[in-house]
Amino acid sequence: MTDVFALPVIDSPNQPEVSPELVDLYKGFEEEYLIPLWTNIGDLMPHEPRAKAIPHLWRWSRLVGLAARSGALVPVGRGGERRAIALANPALGGRPFATPTLWAAIQYLMPSEDAPEHRHTQHAFRFVVEGEGVWTVVNGDPVAMRRGDFLPQAGWNWHAHHNSAREPMAWIDGLDIPFAYYTDTQFFEFGRDRISDEERATPDLSRSERLWAYPGLTPLVSQPSQGTPLLAYRWEHTDRALKEQLMLEQEGYGVTRDRGHAAVRFTNPVTGADVLPTIRCEMHRYRPDAQTVNQQELGSSVVQVFDGSGEVTVGDKSWSVARGDMFVIPSWVPVTIVSTASGSDSESGCLDLFRFSDAPILEAIGAHRVLQQREADK
Amino acid sequence: MTDVFALPVIDSPNQPEVSPELVDLYKGFEEEYLIPLWTNIGDLMPHEPRAKAIPHLWRWSRLVGLAARSGALVPVGRGGERRAIALANPALGGRPFATPTLWAAIQYLMPSEDAPEHRHTQHAFRFVVEGEGVWTVVNGDPVAMRRGDFLPQAGWNWHAHHNSAREPMAWIDGLDIPFAYYTDTQFFEFGRDRISDEERATPDLSRSERLWAYPGLTPLVSQPSQGTPLLAYRWEHTDRALKEQLMLEQEGYGVTRDRGHAAVRFTNPVTGADVLPTIRCEMHRYRPDAQTVNQQELGSSVVQVFDGSGEVTVGDKSWSVARGDMFVIPSWVPVTIVSTASGSDSESGCLDLFRFSDAPILEAIGAHRVLQQREADK
Amino acid sequence: MTDVFALPVIDSPNQPEVSPELVDLYKGFEEEYLIPLWTNIGDLMPHEPRAKAIPHLWRWSRLVGLAARSGALVPVGRGGERRAIALANPALGGRPFATPTLWAAIQYLMPSEDAPEHRHTQHAFRFVVEGEGVWTVVNGDPVAMRRGDFLPQAGWNWHAHHNSAREPMAWIDGLDIPFAYYTDTQFFEFGRDRISDEERATPDLSRSERLWAYPGLTPLVSQPSQGTPLLAYRWEHTDRALKEQLMLEQEGYGVTRDRGHAAVRFTNPVTGADVLPTIRCEMHRYRPDAQTVNQQELGSSVVQVFDGSGEVTVGDKSWSVARGDMFVIPSWVPVTIVSTASGSDSESGCLDLFRFSDAPILEAIGAHRVLQQREADK
Amino acid sequence: MTDVFALPVIDSPNQPEVSPELVDLYKGFEEEYLIPLWTNIGDLMPHEPRAKAIPHLWRWSRLVGLAARSGALVPVGRGGERRAIALANPALGGRPFATPTLWAAIQYLMPSEDAPEHRHTQHAFRFVVEGEGVWTVVNGDPVAMRRGDFLPQAGWNWHAHHNSAREPMAWIDGLDIPFAYYTDTQFFEFGRDRISDEERATPDLSRSERLWAYPGLTPLVSQPSQGTPLLAYRWEHTDRALKEQLMLEQEGYGVTRDRGHAAVRFTNPVTGADVLPTIRCEMHRYRPDAQTVNQQELGSSVVQVFDGSGEVTVGDKSWSVARGDMFVIPSWVPVTIVSTASGSDSESGCLDLFRFSDAPILEAIGAHRVLQQREADK
Repeated sequence: MTDVFALPVIDSPNQPEVSPELVDLYKGFEEEYLIPLWTNIGDLMPHEPRAKAIPHLWRWSRLVGLAARSGALVPVGRGGERRAIALANPALGGRPFATPTLWAAIQYLMPSEDAPEHRHTQHAFRFVVEGEGVWTVVNGDPVAMRRGDFLPQAGWNWHAHHNSAREPMAWIDGLDIPFAYYTDTQFFEFGRDRISDEERATPDLSRSERLWAYPGLTPLVSQPSQGTPLLAYRWEHTDRALKEQLMLEQEGYGVTRDRGHAAVRFTNPVTGADVLPTIRCEMHRYRPDAQTVNQQELGSSVVQVFDGSGEVTVGDKSWSVARGDMFVIPSWVPVTIVSTASGSDSESGCLDLFRFSDAPILEAIGAHRVLQQREADK
Repeated sequence: MTDVFALPVIDSPNQPEVSPELVDLYKGFEEEYLIPLWTNIGDLMPHEPRAKAIPHLWRWSRLVGLAARSGALVPVGRGGERRAIALANPALGGRPFATPTLWAAIQYLMPSEDAPEHRHTQHAFRFVVEGEGVWTVVNGDPVAMRRGDFLPQAGWNWHAHHNSAREPMAWIDGLDIPFAYYTDTQFFEFGRDRISDEERATPDLSRSERLWAYPGLTPLVSQPSQGTPLLAYRWEHTDRALKEQLMLEQEGYGVTRDRGHAAVRFTNPVTGADVLPTIRCEMHRYRPDAQTVNQQELGSSVVQVFDGSGEVTVGDKSWSVARGDMFVIPSWVPVTIVSTASGSDSESGCLDLFRFSDAPILEAIGAHRVLQQREADK
Repeated sequence: MTDVFALPVIDSPNQPEVSPELVDLYKGFEEEYLIPLWTNIGDLMPHEPRAKAIPHLWRWSRLVGLAARSGALVPVGRGGERRAIALANPALGGRPFATPTLWAAIQYLMPSEDAPEHRHTQHAFRFVVEGEGVWTVVNGDPVAMRRGDFLPQAGWNWHAHHNSAREPMAWIDGLDIPFAYYTDTQFFEFGRDRISDEERATPDLSRSERLWAYPGLTPLVSQPSQGTPLLAYRWEHTDRALKEQLMLEQEGYGVTRDRGHAAVRFTNPVTGADVLPTIRCEMHRYRPDAQTVNQQELGSSVVQVFDGSGEVTVGDKSWSVARGDMFVIPSWVPVTIVSTASGSDSESGCLDLFRFSDAPILEAIGAHRVLQQREADK
Repeated sequence: MTDVFALPVIDSPNQPEVSPELVDLYKGFEEEYLIPLWTNIGDLMPHEPRAKAIPHLWRWSRLVGLAARSGALVPVGRGGERRAIALANPALGGRPFATPTLWAAIQYLMPSEDAPEHRHTQHAFRFVVEGEGVWTVVNGDPVAMRRGDFLPQAGWNWHAHHNSAREPMAWIDGLDIPFAYYTDTQFFEFGRDRISDEERATPDLSRSERLWAYPGLTPLVSQPSQGTPLLAYRWEHTDRALKEQLMLEQEGYGVTRDRGHAAVRFTNPVTGADVLPTIRCEMHRYRPDAQTVNQQELGSSVVQVFDGSGEVTVGDKSWSVARGDMFVIPSWVPVTIVSTASGSDSESGCLDLFRFSDAPILEAIGAHRVLQQREADK
C-alpha cells in the first residue's frame, strides 16, 4: 500500500488543503484499505482512454532467431507444454502480455518434435507467416498448417502439435491469456502425453474442413466441439477473397473498406459471429500506395505483416515494416498505414496485414467504438 | 355464413340438446356473426395436427411438358411477369398453393426471352434440376443458373431473368406467397421493363459470389442488400459437402444425419441462420439402399428429386420417384424414404433430394417440433 | 378445382390470347393440379395488402345477451370444453375467425360452474371488461379475474376455470387458433375433469403474482412454466401507468405515443418481449377530444372498448363505440380514433381501448411495418 | 522488466538446464521484450483460478466514521467530483479496486451539499443501507434515495447529487471502474456546475418510476436514456418479493434458491437482462439459522450486509457480520453463509445481503460458471 497516493493526479485541481487532520484522515484510509476517489479520478476516469500499453514493434528476424536458439536449448514437453515465446509490452510491467487483454507469441517446433496434448478455457488461434510441416491435432483431427493458414482453437478443446517435416517450423499463437488471468477465469487440463499413430496422419484437409468448409452450407449434424467447428481457414480462400474485393473495386463497386483496402473477418460459420468469443481476427490487404484514414478503435490489437511492406504510424511511433514484423495498437491510439508504392516484395503486389483484437469482449457489453477521420478532417 | 355448423364435429360428444330455444339461439349467433366453440372444437383444436394439405406427387415429365407448351402459347411480359406454373395441392380448394404456406412452381424461359424486373416482399428462391443458360439479375448483378445451383432471393430485392442460350430452360421457384397472402403482408413493385446491356453480361460467377462465397470469411463492408448477400450456392460445393459426409461416415465418424443419409442446410453467411426468414432449404443425399427413420415434422415441406431414384412414403401415399419429381409433405404426416439399391441412374450413385419447408416461421415463434421414430419403435 | 380461373385478375392485362390450344393447355393444368401465375398474380402479389377480413363491429350488449342465453341452454363440460362464442369476420367464409390469424370470443360461466382442465399449444389470454368471481386455475395456481385484469396463458399450460360467485361472469378470450389451424400446428390434451378442493381457493393474488409482480425484480429460481410466468396483470397497475403517462405529458415530458394518447404493452418480465409469442396485447388511453393520427399496420388486430366512448374509423367503416364493444382492424387498413369530448361515461374520464394483434409473428420473421400519417400530410 | 522471471513457477518441473547459452538466450529475450511461456505457465494457465484478490471485510462503522471525517475536511466540487472513498483490496497492489473488475465505495454528502453533474461510460449504481435525504438527478429527473433503495446508472447518462436534508447521508457506489481502466475504455464529460432549481425538486417518485415501475407493463414510447430506463428499485418492492418467496416456501412451493434462502435479481425491464451490462446486482434473504451450500462462482463479487447478522466464510476467512459491513468474494473462492439463529437484530427477522458481481461480462463471452456443493458432498 505504499504508492497509493503517488498515482498521477491530472484532472483534480480541487484537492483539499493539507492539514494535520487531513494527514491523519489519509492515514486512517490507509489503515483500513481505503482510497479516496478525489486523489485518483484523473487516472481512473480520464476524459478519454490513456492506454497503459504502448505502441511497440518486434522484428520477425529477431523473433525467429531467438526461437531457433530456443529450439536448440529448450526441450518441449509436459510442464512447459509449448516452446512459445511471448511479446511483452514494454509498458505492462514485465508481464508476457502484448496488450492488457491479448497474448501473442512465436511458437517453434523442431523436426519430429511433439508438443503434448492439453486443453484450457483460454481461446486461442495459430497463424502461419512462413513454412509448413506441422499438424495441430484437435480432438483427434489432424489439421495441416501452411503459410497463410489461420487455425482457430476455441476454449476447452484438446490439442497437440507434431512436426512431420525435416525442417523446424515457426508460427504465431494468439490467446486471451491476459484477459483470463485478469478476470481469474482459467481452467487447464493435461491430456495424453502422446497422441496415437492414427492421429499422426498428415492429410491435406482436416475432417473439420471436409465437413464445414463450404460457403453457406451447414451440415445437419450437431456441432462436434466447443466454439467454431471449422478448424482451418486456408490461405487460398483468404487470398482469393481479398483479390476479388480489389478487382470489384476496380470494376467500380463499393465493396472495400477504404479505397485500395480490402479486408475479411474470420467468422464462425454456425453463427456468423467472430471466430472466437473473445478475439476478433481479420486479414487486410492494401494496394501499393494505398493510405488508410486515421483510425482510433476502443480496445487493443496486435498486427503481423503477412506480406509486402509499408509505413505504419501508431500514436507517436512510426516504423517501416516487412514480412513477419509484429506490432501492437493500444486502445484508442490513432493508426495510419501506407503501403509501399512498388509492391515488388509481395506475392500479391500488396501489403497484407493479419490483425487480431479484443473487440468481441467490448461488443458483448456494448462498449465498442471506432472513430475514423478522413484526411481532410485533420 | 351458410356452412358454419357444417364443420366436422369430431371430439365434441357433449353437445346441448336440440330445442326450439337452442335453434333460436343459434339463429342469433348467425345474425350477429358469431360461432360457438363447442360445435367446432374438434376441428379447431385437435389432439394433434390434421393437415389440410394432402400428400401429392407431380411428375417432372408432365411439368416440363406443360411448361414447354406454355412457352409456345403464353408470352412473358409486364403484368403476368413470369411464365411460372404453380403446384396446387388437391386439398387446398383450387388455390395455387403447394402447402398452406408454400408456393412451388416450374418456371420456363424461351431462348432470348426476358422476364421483366420487379421486386416483392415475398421471399423466394430458384433451384435448377436441369439445363442452363439463364441469368437472374439481382440488383444489377447477373447470376448464372446451372444444374444443381440454388439461388436465394430475399424479399424486396430487384430481380429479372434473361435466357442467353439457344435452348429453353426450366427451373423451380419456391416462395412464401401463400403465407404472405394469408397474413395480408405483401408489397410489390414493378422495375424497369428492360435491364441494361451491361446487366446482360453472362459471367461465370456473380459479384455476390466473388465477394461472399468463401467459407467463414466475412467482408468488412456492410451488406449490400436485404437478406442473405450470397446469391448463388453452387452445385460443386453442395455435391462435395454431401460426398465428404458419406466418406467421413465410412471412415467411422458420426457426421451424417442418419446412417447413409447426408444433409446440408443452405444458410445466410452473415448470421448462420436459414437462408430466408420464412423458408428452410436443404439438400439430402441417401446412399443406395439407405432407409430413413419414420419422421414427423410440424409445418409443411415440398421436395424435388434432384438425382437418383427411390421409394417415398408420405402418410398413406407411396411413390417411386425419379429425377425432377416433386411431392408435398403436409404437417405432422409421417415420411419414410428408401433409396434405390443400384443407384446407376444417378451421377453420385445416390438419391439426392432438395427440400424446402416453412420451419423458420415456426421456429421463430417457438412452435417447431420434429419426431423421429426408429424402425424398432414402430 | 372449379373456381381456379375465377380469381380476380386485376394487375394482369398482358394475358395470352384465347385459342383452342390455350384452352387445351389450361385443361392440362387442371388435370395435373397446376395453376399458372399469370392468371392470379394480381390477387396473390398485389402492390400492397388487400385484406381479406373486413372491418366489423360487435356490440357488447348483443354479445352478453347471447352469452347469457347460452348460459341457460348450453352446459359446460368435457368435449365442448368452454362456453365460448367466437367473433366470425363476415368476410372469412363463415369460419369462427375474427381475423385470418386471431380468435376472439366471449366466454360465460354461470355461478358455481366449472370449465374442465385442459391444455393446448395455442397461446391464449383472458381480458375482463366487467364483473368478477371467476378464478382461472393455471398449473394448480388459482388466479382471480376482475374488471380490467389481463391474464395471459402461454401454450401448453394446464388451465381450468371455476365461478365462485353468485353471479354469472363474462370475459373475452383471445387466442391464435386461426394461425395454428392454418399452419397445422395444434396439440391438445384433456386434464382432470375436476380440480382439487385446494385449487378452489379464492386468493386475492395468485402465487404467480406473489413471485413475479414486482417491477424489475427477477426471482433467482428457474421459471415454473412455459411462457410468461406472470399470470395476471392487474388493472390497478395498468390504470396507474396510463394515468401517469398523461400526467407526465401535461407536465411537459414526451412520454406518450401521440398527443393525449397513453399506451402500455403487456410484456413477459423474463425477456421484456411480447407477453405471448404470437399475440401482442396493449392498453391504450385517449384523453377526451384526443384524435389519433391515421395509422396503417401490417397484420391484423382486434380491439375491445374497456371504458369511455368515441368515434372509430377503420377503412370505410365508422362507428360510435362504448364500453365492451369489439371491432376488427384488418391488415394495412387505415384507422383513426377520436375520443368523446366530455368523458363523463368513463372512470378515468378517458377512452380506454384494449387491443391485441398478430404483430409478434410478423416481427419474428422481419415483416412488420407501421405507417403513421400526420393530419397535415393527408 | 526486472521481475520477469520471478513469477511463481509451480506447474513447470520440466525446465531447461541452466547453461551459459541459456542465460544468454534469456538475456536476448529480455532485450527484445519477450518472455517464454515455459517459465510462466503455472501462473498464467493454472488448473483452476487462483484469485489475485483476497477475501477481506470492511466494517461499516469504520467506513462511516472515516467518511464523516472526510465530510468535515474535504470539499465536494468540480475536479474531485465526488466524496467517495473506495475499498482497496489488500492484494491488488494499492489500487482502489475491491476486486480486479469492481469498484465499491462509500459516498458521503453533507446537508445542502451538491455533487456536480458529469457523465461517464462506466456503469454505476448506488445502494442505500441507511439514511435518506439525497436526490440523484439523472438527465434532469430527481430520484429519491432511501434505505433499501437501489439506483442503477447505466453509462453516459448525466447525473448529479444534492442533499436536501438536515443530516449528512452515506451510501455505497458500485462501478466497473477497474474493468474500464484495465481495458482502457473510459470516456468522461463534465456537465453543468449547478443543476437548475426545478431539478432540485424532491418528489417521492422519479418520473422514471412513474413511467416504468409497473410489473410487465412497457410504455409504447422509445426509451428515454441509455441502459435501463428504471432509475430506482424501491425497498418496499424488494422486501415484499423476498418475504413472499419465503412464505411460498413455507406453503410448500419450490420458489427459493436454497432452503430458507430467497433472492431477486435487479433487471432491466426492457430486456429482462441484468440491470447493467457489466454488473449483476441481487438481494438475498436468509431465514434465521439458514445455511447455504458451499458455492464457487467464476468472477468476483462484493457484498454488503443490509440487515441482520450472520457468519460468513470466504475461502480461509470467516467473519461475524452485521448491518453495513462489506466483504469481497474473489473468483472461484468457496463461500458459505449462516444466518444468526434469533434474527432479532433485523426488521424482517432475517439476514439480508446485497451482492454485486461481474457475472454479466463473463456470461456475455460464454465463460460464466457456478459450482454448488451440497453439504453431503463435502
